[in-house]
Amino acid sequence: MKSVLVIHGPNLQMLGRRKPSVYGRVSLAAINEQLRREARRLKLKLEIHQFNHEGKIVDAIGEAPGRHHGILINPAAYTHTSVAIRDALEGAALPAVEVHLSNIHAREGFRHNSLTAPVVAGQITGFGPHSYTLGLQALASLLK
Amino acid sequence: MKSVLVIHGPNLQMLGRRKPSVYGRVSLAAINEQLRREARRLKLKLEIHQFNHEGKIVDAIGEAPGRHHGILINPAAYTHTSVAIRDALEGAALPAVEVHLSNIHAREGFRHNSLTAPVVAGQITGFGPHSYTLGLQALASLLK
Amino acid sequence: MKSVLVIHGPNLQMLGRRKPSVYGRVSLAAINEQLRREARRLKLKLEIHQFNHEGKIVDAIGEAPGRHHGILINPAAYTHTSVAIRDALEGAALPAVEVHLSNIHAREGFRHNSLTAPVVAGQITGFGPHSYTLGLQALASLLK
Amino acid sequence: MKSVLVIHGPNLQMLGRRKPSVYGRVSLAAINEQLRREARRLKLKLEIHQFNHEGKIVDAIGEAPGRHHGILINPAAYTHTSVAIRDALEGAALPAVEVHLSNIHAREGFRHNSLTAPVVAGQITGFGPHSYTLGLQALASLLK
Amino acid sequence: MKSVLVIHGPNLQMLGRRKPSVYGRVSLAAINEQLRREARRLKLKLEIHQFNHEGKIVDAIGEAPGRHHGILINPAAYTHTSVAIRDALEGAALPAVEVHLSNIHAREGFRHNSLTAPVVAGQITGFGPHSYTLGLQALASLLK
Amino acid sequence: MKSVLVIHGPNLQMLGRRKPSVYGRVSLAAINEQLRREARRLKLKLEIHQFNHEGKIVDAIGEAPGRHHGILINPAAYTHTSVAIRDALEGAALPAVEVHLSNIHAREGFRHNSLTAPVVAGQITGFGPHSYTLGLQALASLLK
Amino acid sequence: MKSVLVIHGPNLQMLGRRKPSVYGRVSLAAINEQLRREARRLKLKLEIHQFNHEGKIVDAIGEAPGRHHGILINPAAYTHTSVAIRDALEGAALPAVEVHLSNIHAREGFRHNSLTAPVVAGQITGFGPHSYTLGLQALASLLK
Amino acid sequence: MKSVLVIHGPNLQMLGRRKPSVYGRVSLAAINEQLRREARRLKLKLEIHQFNHEGKIVDAIGEAPGRHHGILINPAAYTHTSVAIRDALEGAALPAVEVHLSNIHAREGFRHNSLTAPVVAGQITGFGPHSYTLGLQALASLLK
Amino acid sequence: MKSVLVIHGPNLQMLGRRKPSVYGRVSLAAINEQLRREARRLKLKLEIHQFNHEGKIVDAIGEAPGRHHGILINPAAYTHTSVAIRDALEGAALPAVEVHLSNIHAREGFRHNSLTAPVVAGQITGFGPHSYTLGLQALASLLK
Amino acid sequence: MKSVLVIHGPNLQMLGRRKPSVYGRVSLAAINEQLRREARRLKLKLEIHQFNHEGKIVDAIGEAPGRHHGILINPAAYTHTSVAIRDALEGAALPAVEVHLSNIHAREGFRHNSLTAPVVAGQITGFGPHSYTLGLQALASLLK
Amino acid sequence: MKSVLVIHGPNLQMLGRRKPSVYGRVSLAAINEQLRREARRLKLKLEIHQFNHEGKIVDAIGEAPGRHHGILINPAAYTHTSVAIRDALEGAALPAVEVHLSNIHAREGFRHNSLTAPVVAGQITGFGPHSYTLGLQALASLLK
Amino acid sequence: MKSVLVIHGPNLQMLGRRKPSVYGRVSLAAINEQLRREARRLKLKLEIHQFNHEGKIVDAIGEAPGRHHGILINPAAYTHTSVAIRDALEGAALPAVEVHLSNIHAREGFRHNSLTAPVVAGQITGFGPHSYTLGLQALASLLK
Repeated sequence: MKSVLVIHGPNLQMLGRRKPSVYGRVSLAAINEQLRREARRLKLKLEIHQFNHEGKIVDAIGEAPGRHHGILINPAAYTHTSVAIRDALEGAALPAVEVHLSNIHAREGFRHNSLTAPVVAGQITGFGPHSYTLGLQALASLLK
Repeated sequence: MKSVLVIHGPNLQMLGRRKPSVYGRVSLAAINEQLRREARRLKLKLEIHQFNHEGKIVDAIGEAPGRHHGILINPAAYTHTSVAIRDALEGAALPAVEVHLSNIHAREGFRHNSLTAPVVAGQITGFGPHSYTLGLQALASLLK
Repeated sequence: MKSVLVIHGPNLQMLGRRKPSVYGRVSLAAINEQLRREARRLKLKLEIHQFNHEGKIVDAIGEAPGRHHGILINPAAYTHTSVAIRDALEGAALPAVEVHLSNIHAREGFRHNSLTAPVVAGQITGFGPHSYTLGLQALASLLK
Repeated sequence: MKSVLVIHGPNLQMLGRRKPSVYGRVSLAAINEQLRREARRLKLKLEIHQFNHEGKIVDAIGEAPGRHHGILINPAAYTHTSVAIRDALEGAALPAVEVHLSNIHAREGFRHNSLTAPVVAGQITGFGPHSYTLGLQALASLLK
Repeated sequence: MKSVLVIHGPNLQMLGRRKPSVYGRVSLAAINEQLRREARRLKLKLEIHQFNHEGKIVDAIGEAPGRHHGILINPAAYTHTSVAIRDALEGAALPAVEVHLSNIHAREGFRHNSLTAPVVAGQITGFGPHSYTLGLQALASLLK
Repeated sequence: MKSVLVIHGPNLQMLGRRKPSVYGRVSLAAINEQLRREARRLKLKLEIHQFNHEGKIVDAIGEAPGRHHGILINPAAYTHTSVAIRDALEGAALPAVEVHLSNIHAREGFRHNSLTAPVVAGQITGFGPHSYTLGLQALASLLK
Repeated sequence: MKSVLVIHGPNLQMLGRRKPSVYGRVSLAAINEQLRREARRLKLKLEIHQFNHEGKIVDAIGEAPGRHHGILINPAAYTHTSVAIRDALEGAALPAVEVHLSNIHAREGFRHNSLTAPVVAGQITGFGPHSYTLGLQALASLLK
Repeated sequence: MKSVLVIHGPNLQMLGRRKPSVYGRVSLAAINEQLRREARRLKLKLEIHQFNHEGKIVDAIGEAPGRHHGILINPAAYTHTSVAIRDALEGAALPAVEVHLSNIHAREGFRHNSLTAPVVAGQITGFGPHSYTLGLQALASLLK
Repeated sequence: MKSVLVIHGPNLQMLGRRKPSVYGRVSLAAINEQLRREARRLKLKLEIHQFNHEGKIVDAIGEAPGRHHGILINPAAYTHTSVAIRDALEGAALPAVEVHLSNIHAREGFRHNSLTAPVVAGQITGFGPHSYTLGLQALASLLK
Repeated sequence: MKSVLVIHGPNLQMLGRRKPSVYGRVSLAAINEQLRREARRLKLKLEIHQFNHEGKIVDAIGEAPGRHHGILINPAAYTHTSVAIRDALEGAALPAVEVHLSNIHAREGFRHNSLTAPVVAGQITGFGPHSYTLGLQALASLLK
Repeated sequence: MKSVLVIHGPNLQMLGRRKPSVYGRVSLAAINEQLRREARRLKLKLEIHQFNHEGKIVDAIGEAPGRHHGILINPAAYTHTSVAIRDALEGAALPAVEVHLSNIHAREGFRHNSLTAPVVAGQITGFGPHSYTLGLQALASLLK
Repeated sequence: MKSVLVIHGPNLQMLGRRKPSVYGRVSLAAINEQLRREARRLKLKLEIHQFNHEGKIVDAIGEAPGRHHGILINPAAYTHTSVAIRDALEGAALPAVEVHLSNIHAREGFRHNSLTAPVVAGQITGFGPHSYTLGLQALASLLK
């Protein structure tokens, strides 16, 4: 049974309360529940974290090789600013999928660019909580 | 039963032969077969086209409202240059999903920008033929 | 009696249905009717086309010299991307007027720049269907 | 009977003498005469000014609400540099039309951008003195 | 008793009527009244002007040394375009404070840059009429 | 009695020792003392933190709703680089005021841009420790 | 005997009439005649097309592999705008030579950049109809 | 005897007091005296003005043809922002020389660019009051 | 005996495993061993840390004055994004040397710029683990 | 019999040894031999130089008028940096052809721009040593 | 008697023959004659050189201190590309004046920027051979 | 015994006299003496040159292969402008180290970019004459 590290980036603990017109009304707990259900269907183990600290995300990715087989990550705000997370993902050299709840291409200009996208396998953006489920399926297929 | 218009953009008829290191060795026919199988599972009707002409894509999208309920589109090269396809998608006002075989963020700079992404619901990029299947699932969920 | 080639660019067949908050609720047929009425008043013959294909617009302009005396064109989305239509207009060397329904300067940044404007006599933008009538008057005056 | 404030921007007092290859040989007096004739036909009252001072243009626009129903303005050089005139037009909140004698898109790069265009209803550029007549007609139609 | 020159830039005479969603419903007279009250509390003399002319603002600042001890200025639109006002402030070499009613960083891109900010002591932006009161307090403290 | 969260960003613990020519010789403890005095006058409760970790600032802002009524923040270096703090401020949706000791517009180019300014009510910059007092007054007035 | 696909891009059907000061007075038929004569000397078969439609150029290049051994192309206006033709040339993976009648580096700025040049073997620009003859010789040598 | 219009731009009335490290300690009156002496030597009549208003400079240049034979101008801050003065100089079509006291190329980036320089005969920058004398000599030589 | 604070930035704990083609196969422990040997030769004390957290690096630098005499730092990914570390280094005002294992000028564009380089004494880049030894020698010489 | 000056720019003496994957394995002597053979066929005299010094290239071009009838030049690295060679070519006013061994459009960004291309008749790039032969033919045809 | 080093940059030996519409018909010898005459009047010794080699200009400037008291330089094409000449001028630390025959601000964009201007006392541009005479006068005045 | 070519770029012959606040007071002869001493310790032969001519640096590097085993270069001003030296270094394909006396990242913007850095092994900047010693050690270690 393969193991997947799931990382929710900064401010996602506010989900359901913060700007519901952009991020929807589903809480992070509900998304995690839905991810676990999908993981069982796909025969994957999940370890799930939410971090506001860039450094903790770098820590977690740095420790993933040997413990996990793939990474599902929503880097949130750090998507656009963190070379450190990019380097961590590139260094870990595990199959990784980047997801976003909102369509980042339809928002402010500084959100159009992703520092992490070039070092992951692929990116899924804009489908709300469903982005995570699709991302997990994509990762499952990469892990085969 | 809902109907989905599937549009493959320019040069995708070459799939399997063109730059396999980037686009893989699966042919367009194989992708369409896989899409039809997934559509049956999702209870969707598909109408599939491959067009090298920007104008034909604009035509097809312009005629979609009233005939289809959603659009799955890989605009390929026109992703980066076609204001006309963007306007058509925006004007048709149907749920639409943009997919790409390769990770466009890991390629040449002029492929990082998408003119169509801001007017579709979401974008899936980098998972090879699997991008299409995930895209159809995302669209199915939007059509519910 | 002088003859004018009228060209409506891509997606204008959707007029009246697409984004009425931007483009208004008047259909293309109604605009054409209004143009024909104004042409009779100005003693001009009109040949009117709507094209979604950049190539067809290039074809039509290329065949205009010898058949028409002037061109009234709303290049729509191709305004911002088509060097080919610019070259066609420059090559045809007929008096030409560019019109836009919406105020392109008040919309997205990529709509502020016009590739065709530098090679036509003048541009009229922002007055809805009235832009066409004003454009035909301007052209009539250039043809005297 | 509706009243229209007509503003000619800086250097237009030189019209007919300054760079006739660009601006033509018609004097400002002749243009005003032609505007007054057209105004009678359209049943509009005109108040016409030429100002070299940015501040006087801001003054005049600031005093227009309550005294005029619309504004016809050729901001000339201030088109490209005056945030103050833009703010005045936006603040006055009257229907306004921007006109230019020459085709500003066919001239130096710094003339392609208009700070005022996004806050007026529409823009007419390139038809020499006829730009004013067309502008007045456009404004008349907006005032109905 | 120290004397402060207060300068309101272009279009501020429209305050209360122009775009109340951005600038609020308080008139310039009310702001001046509130400033005078605060000045009495701070034991400052005020001389207050509103100018639409860049040149008059340059005049007034140029004459300030010897007559005033500090400057409170809302350069409004000239904030973003006037090198002349910047040079005047720098040349006068009096303590100066720049205030803005609206949060200029939350508006159009061309309002994010201030030519005058680098030559004043500090800037206060976004608190409506309260920006002026805070600015006067800041200036009072600089004048001690 | 309303409660205000005060956040001092990275390196501000060095205040009074670091580059006194830019930041002055007042220590952070002295600023906090002055803030508490002013808070008593304004009948506000304060909770004050200094954080060098971007993630801790995101944590603190994320926990503020329900515990505090407003935020007074000097994001220091993170002003120019942190999308995460911006998202946190926007998500918390509390009245917030941004302050800076030095005039950031008179320093290096990369300090002119603020990622956080567009999502707070207003910004006060350049008055040394007095910037904090003015900021607290501005916040008090927003909380009424 | 090797076969070469010759593609003339948009507006080249006007050759000899359009802007003779830039493009010369030789017609497209005369150029084709000269190309056929040179081809006989070089023992090459030619298939020659002129297309105004970007999509037709993409079609023709897409069908070239298996039917032709090399491509001689003057993409004209599409040189500067067509990612689709670039992708087609790259996908076809045949030796290709790009030619231009005029010296594109001595014209408007937007003509200095070629999207197709990086994916062809080489480029010949500025020698009028002679550019084609030189291009065919270059291609003949690549096909040996 | 030829007549020369001398224009000193904004803030130059402060000369000798404003930033003497940049502009020196000579007053404008002293410069004018030195110019008049040089004019007598060169057998030129001078009319000298200092204006803080962009509009007054435009007025003066607009009235120069027929009254003066050449223009000596230090546009100061308006050098970098005034399209109106550029248009006036171009429209007046008199020999004109631009002078600057300081070396504008050694100062802030926004002072490196001159809008007026392309429409005058030449520019002299960096020699303090001597720039004016050299400018008058250059103009005298152009007027022969 | 002088004391040096050595800081390894984010992801350097992965050294020897991450992208060996770029960073080599030497582990961080081996580098530290080599640094300690060199320090003994140079009669320096070392305190060595590896941090993935930007905030911890800021903490450590902030506490260095009074405890250390110099800083040897490889900011890794934070080189390109951290204004906070730059401010910390500038505030600490100790002699500091920046080192990089790889030649950052030969990598992606966003790695060419260093926010920290302008505030350290010098930079050594491209010599693998030897960069550290050279850096320590440079620092030793600065501490004399 | 017409005479042609052939100039090989910097580093071309290394040809055959330097980066053969980019420049091929043919030596400069072999290229010169091939050029002389072609020149005999075309009835042209050649004078051939290789220069590493920008100044020597400027010298040679400056002395060409009166001694040669045309110039064949591979400016190599100076293509992208030398305004002096551009000025020399423009000043000499002889027919000139620019050649490059490699396809400069397929290499680093700073090689895409040619300072010399706008002042020569045409440019041939990408055909290895054959670029020279084609260039000589093009020049021969210009000299007729 | 003070000594001045006069340096004419690349291609100036062609003067009188090269592009007379831009540079005039006066030869370099005539300019030197005129300079010597003016030098006698100003009681200056001249040493005059024309160099096409950037390195020779750097040599000459490097040897000037101790042998000359000032430098009059027309760096021609190297104005826009040579950091080495800039460094030489800055290092020599002699009063220096930069002159240009043509108005570089009215020519191609790449000629608007001068690398040398920020390190000389002043710049004179646009007066043909008279630029040199004015420059020598300016230098004479600096040498007093 | 390995041989190293040492190249000092333009203006370095002035060392010790030119801008001592930036480059220090040590002469080039002293630096060379120090380098020779270090070379004896490292068992390296040195050949040392100082060149003001870009072409001579290109010559010297072009002749290095076969005569030297490595290159130590301070390209000085040519760092920022010379594609020719970059090409020479790349073509020579010897281990090379770039050194700078001053911290180029703390100086003018145009000195932040190095054309040569991407083609050498590494760069050392900011340690005054010590940069050379460190560079020679780095090179010695690369030559092992």
